[in-house]
Amino acid sequence: MDAEIIAVGSELLTPQHSDTNSLFLTERLNNLGILVRFKTIVGDSKEDLATVFRAALARSPLIVLTGGLGPTEDDLTRDVVAEVLGRRLHEVAELRQRIQDRFARLGRPMPENNLRQAQVPEGGEWLENRNGTAPGIWIEHKGNIVVLLPGPPRELEPLFDATCAPRLERVASGARIRTRIYKVVGLPESEVDQLIAPLYRPYQNPATTILASLGTIEVHLRARAATEPEAEARLAELGDKIELALGDHVYSTKGESLEEVVGMYLVMRQKTVAVAESCTGGLLAERLTRISGSSIYFLGGIVCYSNELKIRCAGVPADLIDAHGAVSKPVAQALAEGVRARTAASIGVGITGIAGPTGGSKDKPVGLVFVALADERGTQIREFHFPGSRDRVRHWATQMALEMVRRRIRD
Amino acid sequence: MDAEIIAVGSELLTPQHSDTNSLFLTERLNNLGILVRFKTIVGDSKEDLATVFRAALARSPLIVLTGGLGPTEDDLTRDVVAEVLGRRLHEVAELRQRIQDRFARLGRPMPENNLRQAQVPEGGEWLENRNGTAPGIWIEHKGNIVVLLPGPPRELEPLFDATCAPRLERVASGARIRTRIYKVVGLPESEVDQLIAPLYRPYQNPATTILASLGTIEVHLRARAATEPEAEARLAELGDKIELALGDHVYSTKGESLEEVVGMYLVMRQKTVAVAESCTGGLLAERLTRISGSSIYFLGGIVCYSNELKIRCAGVPADLIDAHGAVSKPVAQALAEGVRARTAASIGVGITGIAGPTGGSKDKPVGLVFVALADERGTQIREFHFPGSRDRVRHWATQMALEMVRRRIRD
Repeated sequence: MDAEIIAVGSELLTPQHSDTNSLFLTERLNNLGILVRFKTIVGDSKEDLATVFRAALARSPLIVLTGGLGPTEDDLTRDVVAEVLGRRLHEVAELRQRIQDRFARLGRPMPENNLRQAQVPEGGEWLENRNGTAPGIWIEHKGNIVVLLPGPPRELEPLFDATCAPRLERVASGARIRTRIYKVVGLPESEVDQLIAPLYRPYQNPATTILASLGTIEVHLRARAATEPEAEARLAELGDKIELALGDHVYSTKGESLEEVVGMYLVMRQKTVAVAESCTGGLLAERLTRISGSSIYFLGGIVCYSNELKIRCAGVPADLIDAHGAVSKPVAQALAEGVRARTAASIGVGITGIAGPTGGSKDKPVGLVFVALADERGTQIREFHFPGSRDRVRHWATQMALEMVRRRIRD
Repeated sequence: MDAEIIAVGSELLTPQHSDTNSLFLTERLNNLGILVRFKTIVGDSKEDLATVFRAALARSPLIVLTGGLGPTEDDLTRDVVAEVLGRRLHEVAELRQRIQDRFARLGRPMPENNLRQAQVPEGGEWLENRNGTAPGIWIEHKGNIVVLLPGPPRELEPLFDATCAPRLERVASGARIRTRIYKVVGLPESEVDQLIAPLYRPYQNPATTILASLGTIEVHLRARAATEPEAEARLAELGDKIELALGDHVYSTKGESLEEVVGMYLVMRQKTVAVAESCTGGLLAERLTRISGSSIYFLGGIVCYSNELKIRCAGVPADLIDAHGAVSKPVAQALAEGVRARTAASIGVGITGIAGPTGGSKDKPVGLVFVALADERGTQIREFHFPGSRDRVRHWATQMALEMVRRRIRD
């Protein structure tokens, strides 16, 4: 069974927004053996949505519409789908009650237009949305399955997993798609490709894609087979060779982020970490604490933008800054050692650099970053020159800092 | 003249890739007064592309296809467009010569299939690609304009600007599109809509869209007119009413983020800020320092995950934590006042809370966050209960902290 995804919303036709729900949906549909053949994006226009939906009905057995289920006047998906399918909308008492209860719990008056979300096309089933007032809707119509989902990802994603996935599992053809993702740090894309192209080239199935993102190269394998174990076996056959070729540059094989992997190592080795950052402005602490449970190993951070704070809170000697400048190897070292000493952490990390776009000089250009790592074995300091925007420099700096921590505790 | 963008490529139908060329194209087309009404994404399949292209011909005067112009067998756009339009492909001698020259310069033998890129549908014009071997193609066909562009952004973007934009300028109706974005904090989406629906409902032009994202509601107005000043006048007529209705909940009218607006206020008032954060783990410092030039007003931050750091670095009295717990009003207050005193900042912000998903209790559930703001007028403390995931709680907490700073310095 092939699928088409229709994303509804005028904001998705502006230069600022793109449809990201379809990435989540594609992943989930693929896992069920369903291939996405078309994606369409259309604005909040009755006529345009009707045109697009009619075309989808003619070519796609499964149609998933996202967005346009909100309470406002420009939320039209429910109405247009009902009209094109020739089904009347009727109010579901239970939905009305749920919406009223929700507002009562929040202690707020319910605007009348919220009740539009209690309406479902005749013959359609509503799907419980635990994170919002717009339910999903499931309609089987003359050989098509039509699914309506709310636009916000935090509503759509759990709703899909809880209600749509099991329903689709029952009707899907049975072919299974499985993927494996190797995340690599410290090698450029072309080198990754050179290493593994001779390995993946003989295989059509799994299909291999190499994807470069900020500070990480991802190698995606995607296998199709009649059963899950068969798809997994195909993945393993090629994947194990690729993993061997990439060696310890692979930091994750299950989709984990670098900060997640570092966290797991820290827990395993019963180590703690503290950070003192300048140009990354808290991003390293923020990445480390994205992980639930990070309070076990993350003791704290100091964001010392001003020299005063470097001196007072991270214990950097003032004459060191005078002698070498705030962006220098000795200051990076002092930050790492200072924050380690003050927090009694196993590992201290210090970052100082120039994120740009301003503040660079001939000697110390934008993109220059020093990262230091201090532990009981001593202090390691690395100098980096990152290209690109402020965002990119900051992200790369934290990526390499995390990679230094990963390698240190893994050894 | 309305447009449709068709992105061709099977990789765009995987969970890993989304079409980003259309964002660039939409921006450029809007500047020419051309509205994008549909975006379609289709794989490297002759049949599927033909289906999609036929539908586009029927509904869209301008069709821009991207991708599928490469030299390999699965690059089908040229062939399918020629076939659907009933035009034969013919080889252009100049293009053949260019491709051969290019390979000669690189000192590589030219694979025969590269010559497919020298083919152009009869009656079509080719558009020079200075950064690759695939030329663009421009075809005027029975009232439709069809443009084929190469997929790689570094080829597509300069090619579009150099060759398509001037051609489109000549044929475009002359209408201009201008947008205005109001960003609102502190009001739920339905309340925003209730406040402004009576204002925008009478207007077809500008068109109004309401968009809820994490901690911000955006109201987008989009006006079309024959001239830019006329479009701006239309925006102003409705926009000013909307701005008045939403009052000081509007924090930005030019697309700025909340941290950008706060930064501008701080510079204007010559104030400085320092933060001591617990559950947000550095996110508040990170958001403040995203802004280039933030070192003028951001003095630093302390990420005090452990109680020791709250005591040692932010000066929170130990008995306060014992008496009230780390997540409490008095500790939030002590964090804000402590970090302000230690850094001599005009404003100190303290955040403590439970981001979850674990660590909650009956008295202090996940999502409970205290935010304190200390300045020379005293300390304000607010208690929040944020729903949702760890990510959301952390984002919301920093959003409300920034909003408290904005209101304090604006007054």
